Amino acid sequence: MESHAPARGVDYSRIFTQAIDRLHAEGRYRVFIDILRNKGAYPNARCFAGHNGPKPITVWCSNDYLAMGQHPKVIAAMEEALHDVGAGSGGTRNIGGNTHYHVDLEGELADLHGKQGALLFTSGYVSNEATLATLAKILPGCIIFSDELNHASMIAGIRNAGCEKFVFRHNDLEHLEELLAAADPATPKLIAFESVYSMEGDIAPVEAICDLADKYNALTYLDEVHAVGMYGARGGGISERDGVADRLTIIEGTLGKAFGVMGGYIAADQMIVDVIRSYAPGFIFTTSLSPVLVAGVLASVRHLKASSVEREAQQAAAAKLKTMLAEAGLPVMPGDTHIVPLMVGDPARAKKISDILLAEYGVYVQPINYPTVPRGTERLRFTPGPAHTEAMMVELTEALSEIWSRLELRKAA
Amino acid sequence: MESHAPARGVDYSRIFTQAIDRLHAEGRYRVFIDILRNKGAYPNARCFAGHNGPKPITVWCSNDYLAMGQHPKVIAAMEEALHDVGAGSGGTRNIGGNTHYHVDLEGELADLHGKQGALLFTSGYVSNEATLATLAKILPGCIIFSDELNHASMIAGIRNAGCEKFVFRHNDLEHLEELLAAADPATPKLIAFESVYSMEGDIAPVEAICDLADKYNALTYLDEVHAVGMYGARGGGISERDGVADRLTIIEGTLGKAFGVMGGYIAADQMIVDVIRSYAPGFIFTTSLSPVLVAGVLASVRHLKASSVEREAQQAAAAKLKTMLAEAGLPVMPGDTHIVPLMVGDPARAKKISDILLAEYGVYVQPINYPTVPRGTERLRFTPGPAHTEAMMVELTEALSEIWSRLELRKAA
Ligand SMILES: Cc1ncc(COP(=O)(O)O)c(C=O)c1O
Ligand SMILES: Cc1ncc(COP(=O)(O)O)c(C=O)c1O
Repeated sequence: MESHAPARGVDYSRIFTQAIDRLHAEGRYRVFIDILRNKGAYPNARCFAGHNGPKPITVWCSNDYLAMGQHPKVIAAMEEALHDVGAGSGGTRNIGGNTHYHVDLEGELADLHGKQGALLFTSGYVSNEATLATLAKILPGCIIFSDELNHASMIAGIRNAGCEKFVFRHNDLEHLEELLAAADPATPKLIAFESVYSMEGDIAPVEAICDLADKYNALTYLDEVHAVGMYGARGGGISERDGVADRLTIIEGTLGKAFGVMGGYIAADQMIVDVIRSYAPGFIFTTSLSPVLVAGVLASVRHLKASSVEREAQQAAAAKLKTMLAEAGLPVMPGDTHIVPLMVGDPARAKKISDILLAEYGVYVQPINYPTVPRGTERLRFTPGPAHTEAMMVELTEALSEIWSRLELRKAA
Repeated sequence: MESHAPARGVDYSRIFTQAIDRLHAEGRYRVFIDILRNKGAYPNARCFAGHNGPKPITVWCSNDYLAMGQHPKVIAAMEEALHDVGAGSGGTRNIGGNTHYHVDLEGELADLHGKQGALLFTSGYVSNEATLATLAKILPGCIIFSDELNHASMIAGIRNAGCEKFVFRHNDLEHLEELLAAADPATPKLIAFESVYSMEGDIAPVEAICDLADKYNALTYLDEVHAVGMYGARGGGISERDGVADRLTIIEGTLGKAFGVMGGYIAADQMIVDVIRSYAPGFIFTTSLSPVLVAGVLASVRHLKASSVEREAQQAAAAKLKTMLAEAGLPVMPGDTHIVPLMVGDPARAKKISDILLAEYGVYVQPINYPTVPRGTERLRFTPGPAHTEAMMVELTEALSEIWSRLELRKAA
């Protein structure tokens, strides 16, 4: 920052340094762990840190929940696309970047959710931000009702919409109804929420929220990012499992977690898809997803529509790990999803446990801190997959028990 | 939309229909052309429209300017990564998604621009939106000075920052200085602009803007999306060509145009990179770029640092096509960049020309309309590359001349 000295009043360098110092002071400055997964041997990976050469580790915090990013069908489809059409799309969807793969995948995703249409974005983040901001701008005077634990990308979209918003307590139907009832019936309304809350591991009462939406004539926007591929007979998410997909106005998902690749989408009525396609800057003004990725996702979505083996193995692994941790007296959080969060409640301690696990046990699990979760609820979040063996779970449980004793941490009641 | 009847006041379906009707009425409803490029035979591609089977076409509007998306080194690197680590990263940069490829590419991009650090985003759009919005929030009271033709992604970032902003006339130094001089010297300032304006094909006076930034103690943010890989001895963009990279606070680029793949980045001092890395929601809360893409970009950036063959061939092709169109009396817009825009000035006519080119001549060039360019300046935008032959250019020029006569369009003076 030498070139921007405090010549006339503003010392940019000082402002930036202070911003970083605040993070250090709160113990939440983030250092990224540098890893490479070993294809075919997941959850094994290599860690590149300050030491000599890569060190073998076991990954316990990937969102590639079903290891589809390693699936032979996905790899083969991507290889074929790479050789057939090349690396990138070379343009926005409107200008040269609309490949046949994109069109096919949108059809496949619409079908997955039983909707008329679907629309691809470069990520789940962008799909949430762009869709919510655009919807609220199209609907004059729109009010958004947002669950207090909604993901940062939904919060960004709602804030960028510049519309009125009410935050309801997490999964609290009474509070939501109170807010809906108090709003002007003549005003457009949108309820934005998630199905699986990935840091808590709990699930929204989707059907009851749809009932409230009908009662108060509100649209619904459901983020199924942590549920698509994972729940429902064809991987259509909680809305499929609960048989309520047709009652939701918009279902949003990612292609980067259970589907194992990258990208995001919405599925909805054709008219709504067309409105977002035509008006959302985050959809319009960006190079479209690489056809190589899209080809991989096509294979992944098609496979998980037909196969439940991966979903079942993952659920079994999660249930087993939860039981083991609970039996060892570790503070595993309740919830009946595929996610296994362990409460720590302090950023420095969460980081310390994670550091010991990596350095001494070759276990990689990232501490989760603010702003990803509220302060004081810092935690470790395990995502066992179909490839995590019982032996790995035993090792992990023993390691955690040892560290809990060493650091004199509180055990569960 | 049957389920959302106008029960109590709000008729959602009508509002959405009206939004789409407005686009039809203005002649700017967009229909995406469904294509697949033929790897190894670019600019040849296949078009999937309403007819039977794919039809061969020549692509004239790709932003894969140097055909790096087809380069054997890029394809080989992606194939290797696909087999080494798999399809997706499986997490955010902080939680499991920070691969060794990401770390390497950030080093390579920092070096490309002679900066201390670089930061990857899922797209150029997200890099602009996230960086500008975050910077302005970190700098208390920040004022942004923005070129009137800045890209939608910069405009989104500036709007989402919620800070004060002044728009200066396109590339107008006097106007910019007037605005800078009128602002409080004690307030943080940021000048946001592009190097190559891709719809005009002109270039900003980067050095003179840096002089103004120094004079008024402002930071600078330069979007080099259409210049990286294309200008400068190593592809560092206009800032490299003009020898002013070290004078810019932040240089932003895409990995989806000249580099041929997908993604975006900024390069800057380590402290600024660290601030954006630590505070920007659009960076933090999203699955990181697929390592397959990152591996491809690494190969592409490294190749274009060492080779100028592609850049020179592309510049020669652009110069030749401009001359041919001008000699045929077609209204090619002036400018000394690699982009060849042909002014039409009306959305319906631009679409008509494009439709005839595709249907009768197998030429694919997308009409560019509002909101990508101001209303009344609708145009066709050609991007000849190293692989467009002279024969293709002759054919294109003859086709355009014929259509210009047929539609009785005005020729250049
Ligand atoms: C609930 C939720 N929504 C959206 C996203 C963003 O999806 P993506 O990673 O595809 O950007 C995430 C996580 O990244 C998430 O947890
Ligand atoms: C000037 C400019 N900046 C940023 C972008 C966005 O980059 P990306 O396509 O990587 O999202 C584009 C075009 O897409 C652009 O033209």
